[in-house]
Amino acid sequence: MSALPPGPPYVPVAWHQGRVRLLDQTRLPEESFTLDLATVEEVADAISTMRVRGAPAIGVTAAYGLALAASLAPAGGVHAAIEAAASTLSATRPTAVNLRWALDRVRTAVAGVPDARAAATALEAALAIHEAQREADRAAATAGAALLPPGSVVLTHCNTGPLATAGLGSALGVVIEAYRQGLVRHVLADETRPRLQGARLTAWELQQHGVPFDVIADGAAASLILGSRVTVAIVGADRVAANGDTANKVGTLGVALAAHAAGIPFYVAAPISTFDPSTPSGDAIPIEERDPAEVLEAGGVRIAAPGASALNPAFDVTPARLVTAFVTEAGVFRPPFGPAIARALRGEPAP
Amino acid sequence: MSALPPGPPYVPVAWHQGRVRLLDQTRLPEESFTLDLATVEEVADAISTMRVRGAPAIGVTAAYGLALAASLAPAGGVHAAIEAAASTLSATRPTAVNLRWALDRVRTAVAGVPDARAAATALEAALAIHEAQREADRAAATAGAALLPPGSVVLTHCNTGPLATAGLGSALGVVIEAYRQGLVRHVLADETRPRLQGARLTAWELQQHGVPFDVIADGAAASLILGSRVTVAIVGADRVAANGDTANKVGTLGVALAAHAAGIPFYVAAPISTFDPSTPSGDAIPIEERDPAEVLEAGGVRIAAPGASALNPAFDVTPARLVTAFVTEAGVFRPPFGPAIARALRGEPAP
Repeated sequence: MSALPPGPPYVPVAWHQGRVRLLDQTRLPEESFTLDLATVEEVADAISTMRVRGAPAIGVTAAYGLALAASLAPAGGVHAAIEAAASTLSATRPTAVNLRWALDRVRTAVAGVPDARAAATALEAALAIHEAQREADRAAATAGAALLPPGSVVLTHCNTGPLATAGLGSALGVVIEAYRQGLVRHVLADETRPRLQGARLTAWELQQHGVPFDVIADGAAASLILGSRVTVAIVGADRVAANGDTANKVGTLGVALAAHAAGIPFYVAAPISTFDPSTPSGDAIPIEERDPAEVLEAGGVRIAAPGASALNPAFDVTPARLVTAFVTEAGVFRPPFGPAIARALRGEPAP
Repeated sequence: MSALPPGPPYVPVAWHQGRVRLLDQTRLPEESFTLDLATVEEVADAISTMRVRGAPAIGVTAAYGLALAASLAPAGGVHAAIEAAASTLSATRPTAVNLRWALDRVRTAVAGVPDARAAATALEAALAIHEAQREADRAAATAGAALLPPGSVVLTHCNTGPLATAGLGSALGVVIEAYRQGLVRHVLADETRPRLQGARLTAWELQQHGVPFDVIADGAAASLILGSRVTVAIVGADRVAANGDTANKVGTLGVALAAHAAGIPFYVAAPISTFDPSTPSGDAIPIEERDPAEVLEAGGVRIAAPGASALNPAFDVTPARLVTAFVTEAGVFRPPFGPAIARALRGEPAP
């Protein structure tokens, strides 16, 4: 599809010489430290200590973890090793849907396969999961890039790049692909308080891809958008309700309101797996409140007044009416979103 | 007007036993350190190193600085000492309008006064400037509190309390007075990146006044407002154009957009001196861009990816159409703002 490889110049997750290779995200952006995990316990520990983050990237890592378990098992014990490893890995992040989906897919692939072949089959299944993620990211990135006119100045929020998906990324995948096509002039990355994924991970990923950017305080987004210094906003999603209401990292809603007020497009790039038909609207999405310490600190240092308390909603919900379109591996969904989402969930392509 | 003193339980700026007493704002909120400044050079240094910040508080401090210079002058040299001190103090913050206004007011007061009486006159003028600020803050706080129904949950941005004005504060003065009247249930304080005036100074001031609050990430404001967890937003202003467009700390515009979308009031509390008849609209307000390091760091620690650059607009402009009302020492201005602002600037009371 393209002369240049659209993949990242770094490898967030890979199968490498019989081990699970991970770029340690807890040490980014200060240092790029590669882990070669040699046991299932090491893989489980890496997932639970967030050395890999982003639901799709966690799923890929867990699948490789099963392949690793299978490769280390004694003859005749491969199936048992896979089951034990699946149990260990499943417990690392109890709410991660992609993780359990990936584990189940590998287990299904090896079911009924003779033990002597099971290790090879598990690795093939893990590699296929990873390749499917790359393909999906590429398809979404290509569809999203087609929405951007030349000279685009893109504002994004949080981190949605290769580190998060083990492919090209979701929203940041669109940005990277559009930049490669010469369509993006500049990127503004919300720092994304409290955890600063924008200032730390998105900034690092844009650097790696050579995309010109500036980090901004989250509070500066509205002003830069209304001041005509941004032509398009693209964000990811944690969950999209059946009507298109979108839960994403806190701060997304403010970007959407500003984009709406300025009349610029607000795109949500999200894999089909993010769309949840069992959630009718945003009202039904519970908002996790995380540790107040995240707000009271920055970069590990206390910043707030001693004794001050904080409120720390992790996500917010952007109403569907503020979303210009969804960018998915199945194409671009435009309003009304309900029918488009339902079609995609039935496996039918966008019209 | 009230049984309890509405003033702060701490003294940001005062004339104390022949010296200029300052609460060192650079050491807040970690410690409350009081400086007793004994020379004009110490006062000038305190202003230029931002141990006092907030335009009105700087003006009051500078006026006391002139009184200090006069008190230390040899017999017959008081007028000369005042002129020299005015020159020294004026150079500390070249763009601070209140500072020069306060210096001129003291110099005008002593003009023509016999040298033997000039020191006393300078002190009286400085005390009068301070008292006028306290009066103005009290009047605005009373007018603003009258706008809040019982049970109000107030969201505010940046720091606009006693530390900023040497009185009761502007927006935070309204909050403190309304809380004292039993009208405020809770306050949400935007942390106000990049300089964190909300998490540091507003949080500290609310603690001192016993007002219950939580600090929030700036990006959480829209979600909490749209989620019906806020009943009113109140902010200050750096400059208000003749049509009501309002420049204030970056992040204010996002609060205004969210308040508008949620249908809750968005009040701007600002002294009449903030209204600028020579600025027709927000388009004419230049937005200062400050050191990118402020965004790349937090609490003195580098947080962004190494090598990342940042864009750091210090202010944003909220269009008048998003402002429900202005709260001033001359009363509450409602739309259309142009005539109300013009009337106030002519010294006529609000109708």
